Amino acid sequence: MSNPSLLILPGDGIGPEVMAEVRRIIDWFGANRGLQFDVSEDLVGGAAYDAHGKPLSDETMAKAQEVDAVLLGAVGGPKYDDLDFSLKPERGLLRLRKEMDLYSNLRPAQCFDALADFSSLKKDIVAGLDIMIVRELTSGVYFGEPRGIFEEGNERVGINTQRYTESEIERAARSAFELAMRRNKKLCSMEKANVMESGILWREVVNRVSADYPEVELSHMYADNGAMQLVRAPKQFDVILTDNLFGDILSDCAAMLTGSLGMLPSASLGAPMANGRPKAMYEPVHGSAPDIAGQGKANPIACILSFAMALRYSFDQGEEADRLEAAIEKVLADGVRTGDLLADEGVQPVSTSEMGDAILSAL
Amino acid sequence: MSNPSLLILPGDGIGPEVMAEVRRIIDWFGANRGLQFDVSEDLVGGAAYDAHGKPLSDETMAKAQEVDAVLLGAVGGPKYDDLDFSLKPERGLLRLRKEMDLYSNLRPAQCFDALADFSSLKKDIVAGLDIMIVRELTSGVYFGEPRGIFEEGNERVGINTQRYTESEIERAARSAFELAMRRNKKLCSMEKANVMESGILWREVVNRVSADYPEVELSHMYADNGAMQLVRAPKQFDVILTDNLFGDILSDCAAMLTGSLGMLPSASLGAPMANGRPKAMYEPVHGSAPDIAGQGKANPIACILSFAMALRYSFDQGEEADRLEAAIEKVLADGVRTGDLLADEGVQPVSTSEMGDAILSAL
Ligand SMILES: CC(C)[C@H](C(=O)O)[C@@H](O)C(=O)O
Ligand SMILES: CC(C)[C@H](C(=O)O)[C@@H](O)C(=O)O
Repeated sequence: MSNPSLLILPGDGIGPEVMAEVRRIIDWFGANRGLQFDVSEDLVGGAAYDAHGKPLSDETMAKAQEVDAVLLGAVGGPKYDDLDFSLKPERGLLRLRKEMDLYSNLRPAQCFDALADFSSLKKDIVAGLDIMIVRELTSGVYFGEPRGIFEEGNERVGINTQRYTESEIERAARSAFELAMRRNKKLCSMEKANVMESGILWREVVNRVSADYPEVELSHMYADNGAMQLVRAPKQFDVILTDNLFGDILSDCAAMLTGSLGMLPSASLGAPMANGRPKAMYEPVHGSAPDIAGQGKANPIACILSFAMALRYSFDQGEEADRLEAAIEKVLADGVRTGDLLADEGVQPVSTSEMGDAILSAL
Repeated sequence: MSNPSLLILPGDGIGPEVMAEVRRIIDWFGANRGLQFDVSEDLVGGAAYDAHGKPLSDETMAKAQEVDAVLLGAVGGPKYDDLDFSLKPERGLLRLRKEMDLYSNLRPAQCFDALADFSSLKKDIVAGLDIMIVRELTSGVYFGEPRGIFEEGNERVGINTQRYTESEIERAARSAFELAMRRNKKLCSMEKANVMESGILWREVVNRVSADYPEVELSHMYADNGAMQLVRAPKQFDVILTDNLFGDILSDCAAMLTGSLGMLPSASLGAPMANGRPKAMYEPVHGSAPDIAGQGKANPIACILSFAMALRYSFDQGEEADRLEAAIEKVLADGVRTGDLLADEGVQPVSTSEMGDAILSAL
């Protein structure tokens, strides 16, 4: 049997430097745990635009469809701000999500013990926090038609369409209920059913799916209240299910609560492929951070934890994922910190690759 | 000259009980400061539905168009959850906003010194916080067509339309720039121009308007990053401008940061009327809180501060507004607390009307 395949798309900004550390981790698992991967690397985002004039080439898209999992760094940067909408780095990422049909985006918001002090929230509010946000990722206002900027009378109008079919809602909901079954059996679904019909349909379908998961305690919350409750008392949540746009905002809000933004991974999963593995892409929640790119300052942990999610969700290697996560916790407990994890100017931060070294030696 | 007119719409849940305290404050200004108002009262939301079968009668709508300012309590409650969309309590509120054309919704997020400890955020992150969010209130996905739940093939699809014309963006932007000129001359506009064309148009129009306000330092931020930055370091902001839906979520997030949710007022302003006053409605940011309704537990301060905003923005009585706000700060400094402002179970909270008493005697 051939090795499972990984396509690495480092992207822009700090993407390449954090991904370099992931490659060392991948190599370690090959050399020491008998987990060999066939790794290839390609371009996405601004890097792809610079090379090919578009943010994702058809060849790269085709490769992404064939591999067992994609690992993505980050896309975007001020250099590309004036590009036409269809050429922006983000379109490369969105094309991957859409064409691979990665409808279920898992975003853990977890507060690492060693970093609880680093949150802007009080320690008792966030210590031990462990939420999983399931964001629908292939539909909604991100992809709905009609969209664009149109002439209307003597002015222009900007239009986007929020659009959800029952089956789109249902499959995202099922993935959230499945996750809830493996966690604390508590699921909160968020929308604006009080003002949006798409939210009414969302709530109705989620209620219908819940009949198949009688053990899961389901609640509904308006998304604005959801944002409030996340800030007020995030530990009331376990799994949160929401749509593409609310998920974008609420998951970033939740990520920031933990004080561990440079630490948070994500998995974007689709339907099972012929080999039984889900279509999958893994990426850190943080962005391309152009301000610190190329300086060896970036924290590689979110990207490395994204690989841990790949081990767990694509390759059924939960124990190896645990091993990697434990190594990271040890390194943090030892006080190793990249600059983003330091409140105190007096302490000397480690570089991106020194953080990689520390994790490798903890492994 | 006749007295200025106020239409009071207490609405549902805790609306009536907090509004009862506002009426006493209004009376105080009439008796002691020579500020007489012609006050009338009517129904909105579930209360209107119970009486007339719709969440806002045409008669009430017509009255709202005629008065100098509307004061609204809150709408909604679980009793109305199963009503048809068009009959929901929220539709009454949205009809007022839309037909009065109240395009500029001002939502201060202010941390009261006496309550800084009460935030879930660390005290140094929020103490002294004073942000003003300007939310576009009459357009966007709240009102765009097409909308609804439609049959498509053998399933249904929920559709809403995000829609902004240049002139809609421009008038909201102007009101934000005007506010910024009266504050710290710093404005941050938030959208998702990286994924939504409506956000691209938004950013373009805001940039254009900024040419008329060269003194205002303008920045742009993606709304997801905005949510993060609000949690991370809210004091970096002064005035924030955003659309209807992002404004709904971001302003609730900002409100919760302050730890003073029961304290936060809002003003919704439209174009000037014949008498020069803007069309205006004032309401607390908090909801109808059905769980504590009718028990005399609710905090009336947000609603009273909404009247202070009316004094300032509708009646040009900035000094009287200052007087009222100072009275409230004094009461808080004295340690008077409704239940929502108490972390410590040991302390005895005051009732809604006792809080009203305290503010009246501070006046
Ligand atoms: C980069 C951008 C297109 C993307 C999004 O809006 O989904 C990002 O914010 C995210 O959350 O993954
Ligand atoms: C009650 C509801 C319709 C309303 C909204 O969504 O605008 C509320 O959340 C608000 O922010 O005023």
